[in-house]
Amino acid sequence: MSNNPPTRTGILVSRLQDIVGHEAVLTAKCDLAVYECDGYTIEKNQAEVVVFPSTTDQIVRIVKICNELQVPFLARGAGTSLAGGCVPVGGGVMIGLSRMKKILEVDYPNRFALVEPGVVNVWLSNQIKGNGFHYAPDPSSQGACTIGGNVATNSGGPHTLKYGVTVNHVIGVELVLPNGEIVTTGGAVEDMPGYDLSGVIVGSEGTFGVVSKAWVRLTRNPEAYRTLLGVFETVDAATNTISEIIGAGIIPAALELLDQLILGAVEQAFHFGFPLDAGAVLIMEVDGLNAGLDQEASKIEAIAHKNGAREVRRAATEAERLLLWKCRKQAFGAVGRLAPSYCTQDGVVPRTKLPEMLRFISGIATKYQLKIANVFHAGDGNLHPILLFDERDKDQLQRVLHASHEILDKCIELGGSVTGEHGIGVEKLDFMTKLFSADDLNMMIRLRDAFNPTNICSPNKMLPTAGACSESGMVSQTKPNRRAAL
Amino acid sequence: MSNNPPTRTGILVSRLQDIVGHEAVLTAKCDLAVYECDGYTIEKNQAEVVVFPSTTDQIVRIVKICNELQVPFLARGAGTSLAGGCVPVGGGVMIGLSRMKKILEVDYPNRFALVEPGVVNVWLSNQIKGNGFHYAPDPSSQGACTIGGNVATNSGGPHTLKYGVTVNHVIGVELVLPNGEIVTTGGAVEDMPGYDLSGVIVGSEGTFGVVSKAWVRLTRNPEAYRTLLGVFETVDAATNTISEIIGAGIIPAALELLDQLILGAVEQAFHFGFPLDAGAVLIMEVDGLNAGLDQEASKIEAIAHKNGAREVRRAATEAERLLLWKCRKQAFGAVGRLAPSYCTQDGVVPRTKLPEMLRFISGIATKYQLKIANVFHAGDGNLHPILLFDERDKDQLQRVLHASHEILDKCIELGGSVTGEHGIGVEKLDFMTKLFSADDLNMMIRLRDAFNPTNICSPNKMLPTAGACSESGMVSQTKPNRRAAL
Repeated sequence: MSNNPPTRTGILVSRLQDIVGHEAVLTAKCDLAVYECDGYTIEKNQAEVVVFPSTTDQIVRIVKICNELQVPFLARGAGTSLAGGCVPVGGGVMIGLSRMKKILEVDYPNRFALVEPGVVNVWLSNQIKGNGFHYAPDPSSQGACTIGGNVATNSGGPHTLKYGVTVNHVIGVELVLPNGEIVTTGGAVEDMPGYDLSGVIVGSEGTFGVVSKAWVRLTRNPEAYRTLLGVFETVDAATNTISEIIGAGIIPAALELLDQLILGAVEQAFHFGFPLDAGAVLIMEVDGLNAGLDQEASKIEAIAHKNGAREVRRAATEAERLLLWKCRKQAFGAVGRLAPSYCTQDGVVPRTKLPEMLRFISGIATKYQLKIANVFHAGDGNLHPILLFDERDKDQLQRVLHASHEILDKCIELGGSVTGEHGIGVEKLDFMTKLFSADDLNMMIRLRDAFNPTNICSPNKMLPTAGACSESGMVSQTKPNRRAAL
Repeated sequence: MSNNPPTRTGILVSRLQDIVGHEAVLTAKCDLAVYECDGYTIEKNQAEVVVFPSTTDQIVRIVKICNELQVPFLARGAGTSLAGGCVPVGGGVMIGLSRMKKILEVDYPNRFALVEPGVVNVWLSNQIKGNGFHYAPDPSSQGACTIGGNVATNSGGPHTLKYGVTVNHVIGVELVLPNGEIVTTGGAVEDMPGYDLSGVIVGSEGTFGVVSKAWVRLTRNPEAYRTLLGVFETVDAATNTISEIIGAGIIPAALELLDQLILGAVEQAFHFGFPLDAGAVLIMEVDGLNAGLDQEASKIEAIAHKNGAREVRRAATEAERLLLWKCRKQAFGAVGRLAPSYCTQDGVVPRTKLPEMLRFISGIATKYQLKIANVFHAGDGNLHPILLFDERDKDQLQRVLHASHEILDKCIELGGSVTGEHGIGVEKLDFMTKLFSADDLNMMIRLRDAFNPTNICSPNKMLPTAGACSESGMVSQTKPNRRAAL
């Protein structure tokens, strides 16, 4: 017989096709290219196969075949993550979850929804808003990112300050373990006994298996908002205002800072009417029962004025409020107007260190002759300095690398960390050894091994491999990248 | 030489004394008896030794000796837990944490405190109240229980409904692992990367090691309260009110139900002026900025009246408010006036199932000719039916056992669980197989093994051992018990 024996890839593809059908398996190079990276475009690799299951049972069968054939696999939502978490660094099978996009149940009296992982974040809020509810975690990418992806990265958003991050809104998950077993954690009732598996699965960046369903909380829409725009001569005045608002016991729904450089770009794009000569603006929102809000907004205004605000405007209409939020959420898109390339960093410092950290970033910009724009979740101390450059200029690129590295090291020095919400992924692996002791990291590895003992599920993510801590030269995570909008 | 070789206990005691000094090691039977059980007095066992370290380093050295000599160990806070979580079922070394009671740091601008595990819950709130802050989780035992114990059991309290349970207020821990390694998870900055170890350590009931420090959030005191007492003819009217308040989008700070039987006991004890002919009362508290509260309180009053409330009173003074809370928090103590013995159960049902569940409990009382009092965290659907009896009457005891079992089974049937806040401990081990699949339980065991691979730390707690699911007869967890005040 002239037939060649089938290749391993051939066997793999054929068996995956048996499960999901031919049209739900991609193998052509041009198709695989679509799935070779996420928003962190520096790190790319193609999967051997991309497969699109429609049910939990299909995920189980796919995972079991991967185990049988010893092929690594990983899940992918919308690919809007920003640290390479869904890059198939070791090849293998990518499990695309975009066909699992059903909102399976909405229970208003008990305030939860049961969703498949491919449900886009904003779809859920859109479906329930007529009943006066929303899904609280609101990353700027919420029009594209999926709830499964939000679970993997424990996504935040501008309203994280008051409402918490994804882990505060997920009350249970169904997880297909890397060996194909299904575990169900938590669920509709919030007080299940046993270890809090849901809590540790959220934010595990896909290294514990494939989340195939999630029970999420519904949050009642506030009765009213007051959305204020504070205009400051200097970044210092704005950051001092932040500390004083929080110190006064006010927890705004959101507290976002945009500096002069980003304001210019946003104003060009959206024509909101931002003062282009201001050093920084703060978007400050309070929400709740209408009766208390004017008092709270007045307190914020007084604090802003005391700290030297030139002007504090209130959004007069809902349309004005929504435009203000559009300016904020699409700020990263507007950065394209400032430079051909940009590198966004994601650092955290204790809130009281914000003035010092912003001054440090300003000094770094001078030292390396770079423009650095700032737009960030100020209330959380979560910075997103955006380093502007032209990637065709190798000298600029080197300066950006060094500047990024110094900024992240400073975050650690001030008692913070190197990621507030984008995760470790592949980008920041090497920083883990700066943040954690060997014992801490070993504990995390043992925890991963409890779920993923053979490391067949999304290998080489989140935790450094032994000896990965390099003392020499630049580490890969500070390479610049073109980022999707945050 | 006539000297006998030293016994293992002799070696153990001597080596522990070398670490902490003679006065911090107890071995006499009469001393050990103090530590033989917690609030679940049915299950008792004496440790071989009780040792009181003063530092993390001493805990590490104690744990290493236990490993060397292969003696099991477990930690104990104040012993106010209610499910036998700190009973040394296998003997060995009990590590009492009452000497580690320092509040090490209070950072108001960044809103956290760093405490040792033996700090009593209310001490922290007392220390910070002058600055306008408190520590939010407020179990009724807060005058005695420790923050270390709260971390172990993920304690709640009346204000859990709005403010969340312990896991929502612990941002980091230092944990001595069962092998003596120290891991530090989270810390002062909330957004640390890596797996959420803090989240999974909270509520692990001491099976992951010994928590030696905790970073906890400080919560700003609300500007004002409105505390309402709603008086209802029937339990049904009260539970319908609860559902409608939550359904209206109001999240009270607390929402507690007391039925007629418990009201009688509480009134005898504290003379608040409760109407003794009412079927049930609700304590309903809203808090926040003063400006919005009257509106919110009025909405609650309207809902209560719509559901047939005979009367809704507002606490007129802070003294009246505090007396009302004293009545609630010490209700379990007052139960001693009703019967020589009582058995408190701790079940959870979805909030919308409360009316059905309360009717079921009433039916159970009739069926088994028992008096059952109810006082509970109504807003969370967390029930505490109190079965009254005389333990000297074996027939009554049997009826209490059967009634308890039926109540917990009904909670499961309605989509709830068998513990809202007391934990599994040793009391409810056998129910785990009713709540979780074999795969779910195996995942929990693998998780425990990641922290505690040899199971030397608090063995035979929280997770059933293989084959522990008994089909025959009554299971031990439904044995009645004299409980400390909740």
